[in-house]
Amino acid sequence: MVDDPAALNAFLDDFGRLPGRKILVHGGGREATRLSKALDIPTTMIEGRRVTSRETLDVVTMVYAGLINKRIVCALQARGCNALGLSGADADIITATRRPAAPVDYGFVGDISPEGVDSSVLSVLLQNGFTPVICAIMHDGDGMLLNCNADTVAQSVAVGASRIAETTLVYCFEMPGVLADVSDPTSVIPIITPDNFADLRASGAVSGGMIPKISNALTAVSQGVAAVSIRNASDLLVPTAGTTIRS
Amino acid sequence: MVDDPAALNAFLDDFGRLPGRKILVHGGGREATRLSKALDIPTTMIEGRRVTSRETLDVVTMVYAGLINKRIVCALQARGCNALGLSGADADIITATRRPAAPVDYGFVGDISPEGVDSSVLSVLLQNGFTPVICAIMHDGDGMLLNCNADTVAQSVAVGASRIAETTLVYCFEMPGVLADVSDPTSVIPIITPDNFADLRASGAVSGGMIPKISNALTAVSQGVAAVSIRNASDLLVPTAGTTIRS
Repeated sequence: MVDDPAALNAFLDDFGRLPGRKILVHGGGREATRLSKALDIPTTMIEGRRVTSRETLDVVTMVYAGLINKRIVCALQARGCNALGLSGADADIITATRRPAAPVDYGFVGDISPEGVDSSVLSVLLQNGFTPVICAIMHDGDGMLLNCNADTVAQSVAVGASRIAETTLVYCFEMPGVLADVSDPTSVIPIITPDNFADLRASGAVSGGMIPKISNALTAVSQGVAAVSIRNASDLLVPTAGTTIRS
Repeated sequence: MVDDPAALNAFLDDFGRLPGRKILVHGGGREATRLSKALDIPTTMIEGRRVTSRETLDVVTMVYAGLINKRIVCALQARGCNALGLSGADADIITATRRPAAPVDYGFVGDISPEGVDSSVLSVLLQNGFTPVICAIMHDGDGMLLNCNADTVAQSVAVGASRIAETTLVYCFEMPGVLADVSDPTSVIPIITPDNFADLRASGAVSGGMIPKISNALTAVSQGVAAVSIRNASDLLVPTAGTTIRS
């Protein structure tokens, strides 16, 4: 969505209107792939994750922390939302650990644990009226930038925020929610809990790439997040939209 | 200097050690020119200023706000300095005005006045222990990013900071200071004030590109900055290094 100006603008209209304290986490993979191509830097994806050479790290740092982060911040400011763009290195807000080179060497890719998020910094920023806009570039605290997965950054940030206040994590994507039948957009599963998740998997209603997504959501819930919503980006302000994952 | 990793690292060692509250302002022109070239985007400079098309704006946003800002922030964090990278759009800290298209159309280039700097935001960040690292990408408050000159950003930020606390502005460059004889690096003029500036100009001791630099420094001093220092980047921690401009 961050790669589609019209969709992004509509989303930022809604995000600006969202009441209460809020944090935006974004990626920008398509734009990074486009820039890599223009610079003749090969893009290698393994299981949906970008293998990040030093050159690719520069590309994603430029695209996520520079181009997309500042476009979003600037657009939110124009909407009266006091956005403040951050990578994990800024204010040391999120520390990641470089992923081991085995079994797959992803290069400069990091993983973050909820302990990697500094809730006190989040709290200071939110209390001062800022809306953090966090890109998926983290650091290891020892001088190395690391490329992370935006979904897991959002999950970790939500768990970190739940230590300060009740937190709902909303994943915006192109589908209306988790679908019982992927060919039927009206088949949104409204509620997933640890109890019915096993049944949904067993019946085949939930499969493929949705399984890790929902597992991560259930983990976030078990770590303190009140609820996780998976919904279409255009439904941000619709109270009952999409799938809600809760305990 | 931000384009030379070894020189930048040595500078950041010194900057990390600098006592008291501090702010770093940076550009990154050479790296932007390099990326433009790699992307076949023409670079046009008029009187030392980059003509900024929409494509060039994307390049400088990626390079200044992304690549260089995050490299600096990450490196300072590794040195125990709690850096927080910012463009002017972040926290609405600096608003610029797009330069009129006549007499020269510079494209997406902005100018900032000291009033454009929000001293209260600077104050909140400094009081919370953050070290702002500000790149030369600003915004107009209405959704447009603007490319600005890093020297004038530094000047405006220093004037803004002087409303909070006594402020010294240090310009780091490749020369040991303002030289009476450009071929003699030992001919540093130690002090320039409004009184001797006219004499230095009349005698030819100060000429060319140094005249606007010193004029801007004297303006900063007249607007509240305690002193401006022009010195070699490697002399950051040397108390008496370079040229001091004061009232």
